[in-house]
Amino acid sequence: MANSTIKKLEKRWSKNLFICVGLDSDYKRLPNRTGDIASDIFEFNKAIIDSTFDLVCAYKPNAAFYEAYGTDGLTALKKTSTYLKENYPDIAVILDAKRGDIGSTNEGYVSSIFDNLKMDGVTVSPYLGQEALEPFLERKDKLIIVLAKTSNPGSAEFQDLVVGEGGKPLYQVVAERVARNWNKNGNCGVVVGATYPSELVQVRKLIGDLPILIPGLGTQGGEIENTVRSGMASGGWGMIINSSRGIIFASDGKDFAQKARDVAMDLNKRLLLLKDS
Amino acid sequence: MANSTIKKLEKRWSKNLFICVGLDSDYKRLPNRTGDIASDIFEFNKAIIDSTFDLVCAYKPNAAFYEAYGTDGLTALKKTSTYLKENYPDIAVILDAKRGDIGSTNEGYVSSIFDNLKMDGVTVSPYLGQEALEPFLERKDKLIIVLAKTSNPGSAEFQDLVVGEGGKPLYQVVAERVARNWNKNGNCGVVVGATYPSELVQVRKLIGDLPILIPGLGTQGGEIENTVRSGMASGGWGMIINSSRGIIFASDGKDFAQKARDVAMDLNKRLLLLKDS
Repeated sequence: MANSTIKKLEKRWSKNLFICVGLDSDYKRLPNRTGDIASDIFEFNKAIIDSTFDLVCAYKPNAAFYEAYGTDGLTALKKTSTYLKENYPDIAVILDAKRGDIGSTNEGYVSSIFDNLKMDGVTVSPYLGQEALEPFLERKDKLIIVLAKTSNPGSAEFQDLVVGEGGKPLYQVVAERVARNWNKNGNCGVVVGATYPSELVQVRKLIGDLPILIPGLGTQGGEIENTVRSGMASGGWGMIINSSRGIIFASDGKDFAQKARDVAMDLNKRLLLLKDS
Repeated sequence: MANSTIKKLEKRWSKNLFICVGLDSDYKRLPNRTGDIASDIFEFNKAIIDSTFDLVCAYKPNAAFYEAYGTDGLTALKKTSTYLKENYPDIAVILDAKRGDIGSTNEGYVSSIFDNLKMDGVTVSPYLGQEALEPFLERKDKLIIVLAKTSNPGSAEFQDLVVGEGGKPLYQVVAERVARNWNKNGNCGVVVGATYPSELVQVRKLIGDLPILIPGLGTQGGEIENTVRSGMASGGWGMIINSSRGIIFASDGKDFAQKARDVAMDLNKRLLLLKDS
């Protein structure tokens, strides 16, 4: 029984829509700046959304780009989320926040992310363990996506350390625990970077059909063909393949929204070719 | 050569001030609520600060309690930080945010926490590794406090896993790497919970005189005597011993600020007795 967020994703996946657009809307890089930060960021996001909504399974704003601008950034984030809920209620919105504190403190983040910002999903860091993250895991209708193998070049430092008797790298132990223990409400997923296709294969074996959020496409070096071959679930679904800068900053001119659409369409075409091959 | 944040701490430590007051100012629990959230949270913090400033080495607001109230919470956080800078510039202010994203994205958090909110220090999660956290580590005048062994009951799930040939638990590997590699600018510390005194002893052995932020006193079950015996650096310094709810919610009445002072004074007395024993 999929929850309402996973159902949204499955509906889009069934239309061969796997791309997630990362709304990493760094104000300094926006082509439509007027000086009204909250409004400019929102208008940029709105233009990106309106020109890509039929090509994606999800949107994923990263909290850091909004927090950088204080209350203005937060206002833009909330307006973006509200706009998506009102106009595109079938598309999942995931806040990439990589949060994780002790249990009672996480209630503050849960309240902010799900009740105030109305997000459908969130990324969390596993370091404090399942017990600490219960306030997230208890939200049965949301998608709680746990960092396993992150896309950055230095992710091996701790994530690849071989742990315990089993002799598995830490990222696999995390993925396995999420699938076996943390997912009691059927609301968990994991993060694996597109920059690590062989690790993606390993994680897919360990977690069955759980959703995998896959960042790192494009600017960070991940290739969509490799990613899809490595990350596909048994039903051909289960992937939220994120591209951020590669889509939203495809052009730094006034045609940014059209160029974003072009890149997203190209990614989808390459996905379809793979599917038919 | 200590940086300016560590110098601030050392000056307080030299006066036997080791207590950090955790400004976990959960709006629902404030005794001074009028309905104006931003103002109420700030006034509560101001009262706590004004009645404890001569007893502490640092203040530590936890971001979750502010984010829970959106732009109002953020306004209260910024007002609190500004108030501290203007009135008590010698006291370090640490944002407990447990942040950690990929490198370029962390720049947004760094900008928010250090440039906008003017914090002196921040807690970060180690999971993505040193390379990802460089935007934090490059801030030479700040204190970057890396989670090693957190205070929550379930922190063992990953932190106590034995890794690699050396056969050390992960939290020790993290602490060791922070001391040996991450601390190249002399601006790092680690978090170890007061609820784990024997782990605190192990970490202190591994990291020399680096600052340890020690949460978990009081409500969470940590005892100050045990904590101090376990966490002291060679010079008798090096500890930021945090108590949040045990101090700020010592009373739920109008006498909350006086009662907070009483609890902080009592903790300091117990510290001095230890020192003389």
